[in-house]
Parts: sequence; structure tokens; C-alpha cells
Amino acid sequence: MSLIYTKRTDLAVEARDLYNEASKSSGDPDGVISTEFESEGLKVHAVDITTEIGAQKLGKPVGRYVTIDIDPLINHEENAFERAVNAIAGELKKLMQPDPNKPVMVVGLGNKEITPDSIGPRAAEKILATRHLLSSMPNQFGMLKPVTVLSPGVLGMTGIESGEIISGVAAKVPPSLLIIIDALASREAGRLCRSVQLSNTGVTPGSGVNNNRFAINRQSMGIPCISIGIPTVVDAATLTADIMDDQGLKYDINALHDKYGSTFVTLKEIDVQASDCAKVIAYGVNASIQTELSIEDIDMFLS
Amino acid sequence: MSLIYTKRTDLAVEARDLYNEASKSSGDPDGVISTEFESEGLKVHAVDITTEIGAQKLGKPVGRYVTIDIDPLINHEENAFERAVNAIAGELKKLMQPDPNKPVMVVGLGNKEITPDSIGPRAAEKILATRHLLSSMPNQFGMLKPVTVLSPGVLGMTGIESGEIISGVAAKVPPSLLIIIDALASREAGRLCRSVQLSNTGVTPGSGVNNNRFAINRQSMGIPCISIGIPTVVDAATLTADIMDDQGLKYDINALHDKYGSTFVTLKEIDVQASDCAKVIAYGVNASIQTELSIEDIDMFLS
Amino acid sequence: MSLIYTKRTDLAVEARDLYNEASKSSGDPDGVISTEFESEGLKVHAVDITTEIGAQKLGKPVGRYVTIDIDPLINHEENAFERAVNAIAGELKKLMQPDPNKPVMVVGLGNKEITPDSIGPRAAEKILATRHLLSSMPNQFGMLKPVTVLSPGVLGMTGIESGEIISGVAAKVPPSLLIIIDALASREAGRLCRSVQLSNTGVTPGSGVNNNRFAINRQSMGIPCISIGIPTVVDAATLTADIMDDQGLKYDINALHDKYGSTFVTLKEIDVQASDCAKVIAYGVNASIQTELSIEDIDMFLS
Amino acid sequence: MSLIYTKRTDLAVEARDLYNEASKSSGDPDGVISTEFESEGLKVHAVDITTEIGAQKLGKPVGRYVTIDIDPLINHEENAFERAVNAIAGELKKLMQPDPNKPVMVVGLGNKEITPDSIGPRAAEKILATRHLLSSMPNQFGMLKPVTVLSPGVLGMTGIESGEIISGVAAKVPPSLLIIIDALASREAGRLCRSVQLSNTGVTPGSGVNNNRFAINRQSMGIPCISIGIPTVVDAATLTADIMDDQGLKYDINALHDKYGSTFVTLKEIDVQASDCAKVIAYGVNASIQTELSIEDIDMFLS
Repeated sequence: MSLIYTKRTDLAVEARDLYNEASKSSGDPDGVISTEFESEGLKVHAVDITTEIGAQKLGKPVGRYVTIDIDPLINHEENAFERAVNAIAGELKKLMQPDPNKPVMVVGLGNKEITPDSIGPRAAEKILATRHLLSSMPNQFGMLKPVTVLSPGVLGMTGIESGEIISGVAAKVPPSLLIIIDALASREAGRLCRSVQLSNTGVTPGSGVNNNRFAINRQSMGIPCISIGIPTVVDAATLTADIMDDQGLKYDINALHDKYGSTFVTLKEIDVQASDCAKVIAYGVNASIQTELSIEDIDMFLS
Repeated sequence: MSLIYTKRTDLAVEARDLYNEASKSSGDPDGVISTEFESEGLKVHAVDITTEIGAQKLGKPVGRYVTIDIDPLINHEENAFERAVNAIAGELKKLMQPDPNKPVMVVGLGNKEITPDSIGPRAAEKILATRHLLSSMPNQFGMLKPVTVLSPGVLGMTGIESGEIISGVAAKVPPSLLIIIDALASREAGRLCRSVQLSNTGVTPGSGVNNNRFAINRQSMGIPCISIGIPTVVDAATLTADIMDDQGLKYDINALHDKYGSTFVTLKEIDVQASDCAKVIAYGVNASIQTELSIEDIDMFLS
Repeated sequence: MSLIYTKRTDLAVEARDLYNEASKSSGDPDGVISTEFESEGLKVHAVDITTEIGAQKLGKPVGRYVTIDIDPLINHEENAFERAVNAIAGELKKLMQPDPNKPVMVVGLGNKEITPDSIGPRAAEKILATRHLLSSMPNQFGMLKPVTVLSPGVLGMTGIESGEIISGVAAKVPPSLLIIIDALASREAGRLCRSVQLSNTGVTPGSGVNNNRFAINRQSMGIPCISIGIPTVVDAATLTADIMDDQGLKYDINALHDKYGSTFVTLKEIDVQASDCAKVIAYGVNASIQTELSIEDIDMFLS
Repeated sequence: MSLIYTKRTDLAVEARDLYNEASKSSGDPDGVISTEFESEGLKVHAVDITTEIGAQKLGKPVGRYVTIDIDPLINHEENAFERAVNAIAGELKKLMQPDPNKPVMVVGLGNKEITPDSIGPRAAEKILATRHLLSSMPNQFGMLKPVTVLSPGVLGMTGIESGEIISGVAAKVPPSLLIIIDALASREAGRLCRSVQLSNTGVTPGSGVNNNRFAINRQSMGIPCISIGIPTVVDAATLTADIMDDQGLKYDINALHDKYGSTFVTLKEIDVQASDCAKVIAYGVNASIQTELSIEDIDMFLS
């Protein structure tokens, strides 16, 4: 099972495959139930980790992980943006039950200056922050749900863990629910900027491009924590090991790690793709919360 | 005294002149003491508001306001950057006595996406955040003072007042002192990006480009609050009224406000100047706290 | 008539008013015919300078100058973007007759790094460059008209006049028509980012934010030269003189110039507004050339 | 020899190794002479392709290719920037003999909006453009050599090949020499942003990140063409094939290309590294031309 740790991925759907490859098994391991379906014509793959045994096997906490394939968006298919937004909003709504009287707090993790790590803060810029409008102009904005938005930055720039900033602000302005947006690492270059993962487990230490050291989850925050992410980097050693396995080759995983160290690679076109990915996530989150608003309404609020 | 309200300025040195012009007086009003001196060859103008009467006259809280003229920097004079950094650091040190066992928290107010309002967050990016280094590698970084850095964003983007975010985080990671960096409004176009104002009064409601609604000061935060700012905008009506007074002309201030509404103008070259201003402020703040480090050391840490 | 030179404007409609104010006359001067009408619900003001006498009076070459008021766009009125694009495209089409066998060359003048001067290069990024598609994939792109796009940069960055770069490239890849996009200076702060001026006179030395030293017009280039611009800056002395005149005050224009030198001011929100203005101009230009494409088609090509 | 075409590299030093690996030979092939030395403490590797046979073997034109290892810069060693600038300037000076009466034309190839492809235009922004200063203020700037700077953009944005733009402008403002800056592809992730390649062969079709279709060399331009580049991307199939060879594994190169298509990857930290690389190249080019100026002088001119 060591391959799970030597091949780095934040996607549960990839972790399941890695487990099967390492254990030479197939189908769902004990404590894991996966299902596939379509939403708005997009492929959706849900992995439910139902027991601690399943959690150990996949190296991820018990909970639900939903991966939505946004290939149609990257390929500029007709109505792909609208369909992707609706699919994301639909799956998010199944994961959360916000209290209408308290704000939802949307958090964008990561470093805006490092493009592959900027999905969180870039998406946060396109989330409709409404709490202040509701309190100052209740008649005009009564149809909106209250939302607060925070981009805590990164430890190296702030000297404070993201989790500390979030819990400090959440103590001051208590939300009923956290939605945390982050960039992820995938195992395959082919998944970069092409899969959105939603989960109800929050953010686990060591996951995300941003390498969070502290968990941001129901246990640490005391409220439900939904996470939403998109893979933007691949660990170079993982990338190589993966293709070798694909070709049925044997290799020395330690040699790969020695050669590449902690080199992560991303797509050459990451500037454009990170911008597109942040937008589709933000609109999906907006649509899941502000159920009265159309995409055009969201455009109008953001302009 | 109505001119104080119709001509908008965040600079105490301009507020004093406005008071004198409106009251046709000269010298220091009651409760106000101003002094001029040089530091590192830069002109410095200090205004001490010592009583509530002085505070009312100038429309600013009791405290010390120090304006440093950074013209030599804009004119690219020799060693101007180093001299400006040293002058800012020197005056800041006179205003503050940080407790070495608790971090100084540096806050960059404003909206990074609006250039004239971006001085705070841009400067924050160049502040050495050290708290995490001191706790994780005390032997290596023992010579540094602990610093945390926060850019809370703006109400329209977060739904939360900057003051709420700051006090939430400060409750979680208590600092001994706040240093708040913000863009300011001046009365004269000629002052834009040319004067740095330091004060020990924090940030007053309605001041700053960012129009803070809540005070961030010793009373609201429970700790000393130093503010440091640089004017980047002029209210168009103020700009016009000011030049008319300068030429001895009479005019209808209401007509000016009707014509311009809340139009603020800035310099055509604000992109470059905001970047230069943010850097000199950040280095001045770094030098005032990390007294063991040279400018070259700060460069090295930031690279 | 000296006021025409002391109050700086690149808009013919303002130059006409300045002439009338200076000469205490009203209506159209000799050699000038102005008309007002609506297009797509937007106000349009055309100034035709028909003789050299008219040209001297307004300080602008003989030709047609059309100003379209895009207030509805700034105010986020319904369908304002589409209406403004159609109005710009409609007026542009009246000014030009491109040869379908040679490309239209679209030029974005100005410095991308100085926001108020970036309208030209920013708009150029949203012009559909099609010449290479037509030659490499004629079957697929046969419905498109050939277009080339150039952003020559600024003299200080290149060491070469924009006019030299354009004529060098035009000699190599001959266009039938030039469309030149540039930022302009207006006389009034209230016009900033709110009026689009089209003309068939190209770009005159000393005009534009960019202060071109060489003319880019039919005489220098040998082909029709359409210019399209939007005011983003006001000369600070002009701004002040203008409001003084407005209030019927007498003043010393030399004192204003002495006080402000060559200070230009712009709107505090110029980052957002320059982006919006560049987009509406680019789409208007695209729609005027690619008459088969809808706004949605243009969106698709640019994504 | 097919591996030379299936493993993509723009570095002559890597092409030589690929040839040797494919032909199971060692040392220099016929028509190729390589030498290693140090400059300013940096490792330098020169590959001279002296005959057409050598050119065929390495898949690159006859000429000199010098690779300078800038690891000390990436590792933030003491004085690394100054040493790298001097090493680049020293090797450039050996490759070129500019005519002091005609300008050197420096060209930044690539797309500024795609970070790994932005080295050329970013470096161009830091080249001292002096031609206009010399002609307008000869007394003040007499110590400078004349330089023009051009960033032609990319075909997809302009509809014109970079080579056409360059030759059009060069016909109008004739230079004695071209220096072309471009981003490159390397074979190994470990070389990304760590090696600067200089050559006297200009830019070959199909090379560069930017995939130039037309040669920019002495033959096409009629003047000496120096190129300077830095690898910022690796073809994903090459990356994988390379590590497999490294481990002595056999694989199906076609399967790799099928899996990855034209996916190029870059470093996660490319934003910061592209900025650093562009700066060191620009300063090296400036120092090679403006031999009277120190690094501090260049800083001053650029501020």
C-alpha cells in the first residue's frame, strides 16, 4: 500500500484506483462505495468512504467525494459553462444544508501570486459577498442568502496558519457552514484543470497545493465544512511513476523521488485555465447558495 | 469650519492649513502643536493634536501625525530609497514600543484590484512575516522579531468589515501592536504619492480611500494602533476648490460637489507610483521592527 | 483662441465648445457642421470639419468626428453592452470601405503598463486576428474578413516611433485600411470613460494620451486611417480652468499651468473602467469588420 | 536517430546527449566540438557545430551554442545576480560585433499572457531602448549605444508571423545586429529556468515555446542574429521518456505521444521564476551592449 503515499493525489477517485493497483484488486475496497452517473451531460463519479477501514485504504477521511468531469468546458462545447455551473451547484446542494439565518462563509485557500495555487483566491473574488447588503439594505436584497468571503493568504506571507485566520474570523462573524476552495494535486497530467472534486470532509492536513498543516473540518471548526477543488499540479515523480505503471514497467520509486525532489509541474497554459476554472467554481458555489439567481443575475452583480 | 468638511483630506498637516484658511488665522490653533525638522535629508512635519479642542478644529483624534516628504524618491535622487526607508523607520520607532514576546501585526487595508487603493495590500506583500519561522526554527531565526501580516480585503468583496476581520484574527493570535497601512486622500494633486503620514491614532471612520466605517484604534482593539498612509487620490471637488482659493476666487462649494459627485481622481502614472510607494512603506515598516536587518537583508528575505 | 491651446482636449465636440466659449459665439463656426442623433438609444454627436478655416478654428484636421455617449454602459443598463457595440460598429461602417482582398490592420497605441494609456493595447488583445487563419484554413474560415493586429508599444520602450513600426509592418503586409485605437484626453472629468470618439482623420501629432510625434493618417500611410478613442485622462490645469469658466470666474491660466505642470489625472476606478472601455471598443471594431459574426460568435473566437 | 525527434529539446547540449544515447556513442560526434569552462564561477558548456554532418546529427544549424548554468541565481547565492549578468554579457560579447553607428535591435518573442512563454516580452521590457535618446539628446546620452526593442506578439494575436513584423520594422529602422530572446523547451524538468542558452544561429523554425514557423537568422534577415533563451517547458512525453531511459527501461514512444499529445508542462513556481529569468537575461543583454554602464546604472535607467 506504500504506492498510495509515493504517488501523490488529492482526488479520492484516483486514490481508489491507486489502492486497487497496489493491492492488485478491482472494484470497491471494503468501506468504499463508488457510483457513476451524469449531471447536465457531464460525467460524475462519487466515492463514499463509509468506514474507518475504507478511510485507511484510501488515505482520506470518511465522507463523500464527488468528482465532476468538466472536459466539455475545456473543449468549448456549446453551453458547457452553464452546464458545468449547474452540475457543480446541484452536487453541492446535496452536500450542504445551510441555516438561512447565518451566513455561509466561502474561503479561498492558496497564494494568488502562484498561478497554479491561485484557484482559491481567484474564485473568492467572484463569490457574491452579501452579508453587508442584507443588513444595510434588507428591502432591496431580501432575496439573497447571507454570504461572507475570506482569502486568508498563505503562511509564508502572513505568519499565521489559514486555519487560525478562518477560525478567528468565524468566531467574530459565525457562519452556519464553510465552503473551502483550493487547488489540488492529481496523479495524472491528463486530469489537470479537467475535474472538480467536491467533498463534505473539509481540508485535510498536507492536502491541497498549499500544503495546509492544520485540518479545516467539522471537528476543528465546529460546523459543516464543504471543500471544492480542482487539480492544477502533478508531482513530477508521480507523473513519471504513473506512466511507467501504465506501460507495465518496473522502476525504483525512490530513484524518482531523489531525481525530482518536490518538483511539481503544471500545464503550460495554466494562466488561462486557472482563470476559467476559478470562474466555473465560483459560479457553481454562487448558484448553489443563491438559488433565486440565474447566471445572468450573477454576472450583473459581479460587474 | 465647514471647509474642513467640504475639502476632503486625510493629512493632518493639510487639515491644519484648512482650519487656518477657514478661520483666517495663522500659526497653530489651540490644542495643536506643529514642528518641522529634517530626517535623512527629508522634510518632516509633525502635528501634535494635544486636546479635544484641537481635535475638533482639525477634525482628527488627539495624537501625533508625522508627515515625511518623499520627493527625493520620486525625483530619483541618489540614495533616496535608503534615506526614505530610514526616515520612515526612525519616525515609526518613536511612535511605538512593541512587546518583544508578542508579534507586531501589520495590516494592509484596501482593494488590491483598484490601483490607487492598493497601497495597503501591496505593501503587506513586502512585509516580512516571521511568526511561523520563529516558532518552527527558533535557532535559525532567533534574531527576528515576530510579525504577522493580514490583508483583510474590502467590505464589498468579503461582506465583513475590515475591523471585524482584524479583531477576529487578533483574538486568535494576539499582537502587542497593530501597524495599519492604507491609501489616503489629500487636498492637493501635488501631494499625491509624495508624502507619507504616520500616526499613533489608528484609522478613523470615513478616512482612507477605502472609507472604513469602523475605527481601528486603541479603543476598539485594546492595543496601540499605528497607521501609515500615503495619499493617492484627490476628491475632484476639493481639487477644484483648492486651486480657486489659491487664486483668491470665490465660488459655490455646493455647485462643485453637485458637478463632481463622489468623483476621485488620481495620477495618470499611478501604476508605477503605487508600486514604488508600497515598497518604501513596507521597507520602512520592516526596518522599524527588524532592527537587526539591513535593506539588503530585507531584499534577501523577500526574494 | 488661445484657450483652445491652454485647455487640452482630443474630442472635437469639446473643441467646438471651447471655440465658442473663447470667441463668445454660439452654434457652428464657419467650416464646421455638427449634428446630433441617436443610435441604439445612445446619444451620438457628429462634428464635420469641412474646410481649412473650420480646421484652424477647432485645431483639428478636416474630417468627420463622431462621439458616442456610452453612459448606459457605465450605468449597467439592460443590454447596454450590445447596444454600445452596435452603435460603434454602425458609425465605424459609415466611415470606412475596406477592400475585402486586403486585411484591415487594427493598431492599439499606448503603454499597457500605464492603465489610463492602456486602452489601445488592451483593445488590440480582443480584436480577432484572422489573416493567418484565412490563408492556412480557407475552407473553415472563408466567412471571415482578413484582419491583422499590432500593438507597437511606446517610444520610451522601443526607441522607435509608433508610426515607423506601423509603416514598416504595413509595407510588409499591406492593409487596405488602418483602424487606430488610442486613449484620449478630455477637457472634463465627467467625460472620462463615457464617450467614444471615431474619426476618419487618423491620429494627429501631439494628440492621444501617448503624445504621438508623427501623424498616422492617409497622407503619411497612403491608406485610409480611422481612429477610435476614449478619454481616460484630464490635464489638471484644464480640469481646473474648465470649472472656473463654468462658474464665471476669471483666472490666470499661466498660474494654473505653473502649479500643475504636465500633471494628468484619471479616475480612481480606472482599472475596471479601462478594461470595460477596451472591451466595448474591441467588440465594436470586430462587429464593424466581421459583419457575419454575432457578439456570441466573437466571444467564442476569443475564448 | 528518431529519438532526437521524439524527445523534444531546444538546447544543443541536450541534443548532443540525445544523439549519443540514440547512437550508443560517447564524446563529440563528427562535426561537433564541445568544451566546458567556468565564467564568474558559473558552469559554461559550449557546443560548436562545425559541419553540416554535425548539424544533421544534432538537428540544429551550424554555429555556436553556449549554455550557462544559473543554478547559483536560483539558489540565491551571494552576488549570484551580478555574476550571472556578467557571465551572460561576457559570452554574448564573444558572439557579436555590433556596428556602433547602427542600432542593435533586441526582440522579445512569445506571448506575454502565457507565463512560460513570456520570457521574451518580459525581458524586452527591461532592455534599455536608447535610439530615440541618442538622436534627440546626443550630448546627454552620447555614451550610450543605440538600441531598439520590439515585442512582435504571437501569430494567433496578430495574424502576422513574428519574422514578418521584425523584417518590416528592420527595413524601416535598419539594425546592424538582432538579439532575439525566447523561451525554450528542454528535455529535463531539472533544467527548467536553470540554463541560459546563447547562440549565433538565430531562431530556427519549430523551435522555441512559441513554435516559430519562419526562420529568423542571417539568411532571412541579412544581418547577424544572436539568440538567447531559457527553457521554461518540457514536453510531457519527453519528460517521461527521458526518465525511463534514465532507469534503463524500454517503452513505446508512440504510446507516450498518444497519451500526452502536445501537453507541455512547466514548474509550479513559474510566475516567480519567469520574472527572475527575464530580468537576468535583460541585464545580461544590456551589459553586453552598454559596456559603459554598471548594473546600478541600468537599474537607474529602468526606474
